[in-house]
Amino acid sequence: MFAPVYLDWNATAPLDATVREAMLPWLGTRFGNASSRHEYGRQARAAVDEARARVAAAVGAHASEVVFTSGGSEANNLFLKGAAALRKPAVVAVSAIEHPCVREPARQLRRQGWTLREIAVDGEGRIDAADWQRTLAERPALVSAMLANNETGVLQDIAALAADVRRSGGWLHSDAVQALGKVAVDFRALGVHALSLSAHKIGGPLGAGALVVDKRVELAPLIAGGGQERGLRSGTENVAAIVGFGVACELAVARLADEQSRLAALRDELQEALGALGATVFSAAAARLPNTVFFALDGIDGETLVGRLDRAGFACASGSACSSANPEPSHTLLAMGVAPERARGALRVSLGRDSSAAELRRFVETLAAQAQELRNLAALAA
Amino acid sequence: MFAPVYLDWNATAPLDATVREAMLPWLGTRFGNASSRHEYGRQARAAVDEARARVAAAVGAHASEVVFTSGGSEANNLFLKGAAALRKPAVVAVSAIEHPCVREPARQLRRQGWTLREIAVDGEGRIDAADWQRTLAERPALVSAMLANNETGVLQDIAALAADVRRSGGWLHSDAVQALGKVAVDFRALGVHALSLSAHKIGGPLGAGALVVDKRVELAPLIAGGGQERGLRSGTENVAAIVGFGVACELAVARLADEQSRLAALRDELQEALGALGATVFSAAAARLPNTVFFALDGIDGETLVGRLDRAGFACASGSACSSANPEPSHTLLAMGVAPERARGALRVSLGRDSSAAELRRFVETLAAQAQELRNLAALAA
Ligand SMILES: Cc1ncc(COP(=O)(O)O)c(C=O)c1O
Ligand SMILES: Cc1ncc(COP(=O)(O)O)c(C=O)c1O
Repeated sequence: MFAPVYLDWNATAPLDATVREAMLPWLGTRFGNASSRHEYGRQARAAVDEARARVAAAVGAHASEVVFTSGGSEANNLFLKGAAALRKPAVVAVSAIEHPCVREPARQLRRQGWTLREIAVDGEGRIDAADWQRTLAERPALVSAMLANNETGVLQDIAALAADVRRSGGWLHSDAVQALGKVAVDFRALGVHALSLSAHKIGGPLGAGALVVDKRVELAPLIAGGGQERGLRSGTENVAAIVGFGVACELAVARLADEQSRLAALRDELQEALGALGATVFSAAAARLPNTVFFALDGIDGETLVGRLDRAGFACASGSACSSANPEPSHTLLAMGVAPERARGALRVSLGRDSSAAELRRFVETLAAQAQELRNLAALAA
Repeated sequence: MFAPVYLDWNATAPLDATVREAMLPWLGTRFGNASSRHEYGRQARAAVDEARARVAAAVGAHASEVVFTSGGSEANNLFLKGAAALRKPAVVAVSAIEHPCVREPARQLRRQGWTLREIAVDGEGRIDAADWQRTLAERPALVSAMLANNETGVLQDIAALAADVRRSGGWLHSDAVQALGKVAVDFRALGVHALSLSAHKIGGPLGAGALVVDKRVELAPLIAGGGQERGLRSGTENVAAIVGFGVACELAVARLADEQSRLAALRDELQEALGALGATVFSAAAARLPNTVFFALDGIDGETLVGRLDRAGFACASGSACSSANPEPSHTLLAMGVAPERARGALRVSLGRDSSAAELRRFVETLAAQAQELRNLAALAA
């Protein structure tokens, strides 16, 4: 199999070998419905409970605050729709750069009578202070602001936002899907009412995620039924995936300090090389994830470049790779005031555990060559 | 590890070895976000598409009618809530013996202004003909009736119900989670508007299911976001689980004829032996799944017996094993008019691919001995 260098860790990360080892028994001799009251069921329940404690520990929460879901999208939908279902329509505010799985449920709420407020960001992709004050003045019942953006990697000061929202009587939810494993995430220190996590972004399996949620936050289930997950998420528990998620969380925390500085150093080196090629790095002045570089080369189309890099052996993303085929330029960049022509040039490199300096040097060389070819073609066509 | 004989296949089935082999590459060297437009993403997309074709073929549907979900509970919730979200509140009718993941979302709709109609069943657990006519007279917009009941195994004549509902202008959904792999399931022949499936009940993995849905049925997504699954189910696709589901569907269909007659023969032998012990088999006169026997022994508590059988090396269920801890007697039996005292004695044995005549003979011996001990204890206490 042709295996390009993987530079798209924010889209999904390969399954960590240690995580896989922990999961395999649950895809082999061990099995059982965690609700069954026989030996198989009890063992499945014990494995789920152990994983719950691990996930909770990774974000400084209590195990009873972890609601397992099928992934980050479900966790985000669960918070917004689950909280809205038990309240009268009011104001829901989400930042202008949220992932579609926060934006779309918020829009669905609007169709149900809620007032949707989009919170503006500045040119670096940080929530705009003045617009934040205007938002608070509208006393939103529900607010969702992501901890780290999947495209730019920009980190928001969620603790400050949460304190403001608490004071004004609302609930703050934060999508921490891209933050987990890349920066420290502490449920208590952030002071949020709820936090979304996803296993497959941190070397865990697809099929597991969590909403970490304060017990005082009342939610209606999105998936109602057998009453699993304290009635907040029914469906037979995906034991293997939950076990893998638990181990991935533990590993992510154990490796965090080392990986953070290693990735930041790689990232800085990459940014320097990109600068030498004349690239613009988005949000370069903001606090960001250590692994993400979102950039554009003048006059070059991001989609086209990604296709060429792919054939040349490098897998990276243009705009958001989490969404389905969508030819629109990145809504995150547009919200930052980046011109559509420039936004269309965007390319995202996101690093992970397997990324190395040698790979990135080869990447930059290939990028330079491909960009030059595209420029030559454009010159010929002109 | 102490490994009791597994007689609880309706709760969950062990992962089939062939399915596991098909999944392992996607938990190893192969990975990728199926929405990514590079080599990894394209390969993930191709694997998902192939699985979609397999699932569709297993139920005689078109691949474009398959919406992958995280499991059966999500599929049931997606149909009921997704259809209701795009309509004005009207009448929703569900049979009195539905799984909680149909009953509970229907109750949530009631809180949103829908009129909930429960359709009565007769003493054998079949939808009551007279009550069905009364239900139709109320012109329900949405109807949900399960193809096979998880406890009794009773099969409903869904094709006839679907024809009636079509004539009265409503939509019929059928939960086929327990039917798949045990009896033939044909989306076209049933004539339903939507059908729910779950991988883990047929030797596939936990974490995958599907709503097979007629394209003319408009649904709002339960999980909104990146727009995966034609906008009906967002979230990064769980490639490994979906691949496993596809292979499990293919195997289930290939093995159906042989397994059906093999299991029915085992079941009949078991029922005869239970009859000799004085047990009452519920729904014995109805058309049923070949693998399920739901029965009670006079004066014996089902929970207690299940606990003793577990310690004696046999894993079976009392009432519904799919739901969480719930001390209420089976709502299916109550709906059939079984007295609560008798319903509390219920025990479910559900067979699968590994079940053998020798195991069942040992099971009946152990059951007889345990029942006798319980009766002796009761006599001492009296
Ligand atoms: C910021 C962010 N939130 C949520 C999600 C959705 O998570 P999942 O793929 O687990 O549904 C993603 C990526 O897909 C993401 O980048
Ligand atoms: C009839 C029936 N429907 C739905 C479900 C739920 O399926 P899942 O466990 O895949 O959510 C089950 C079992 O749990 C069931 O027996």
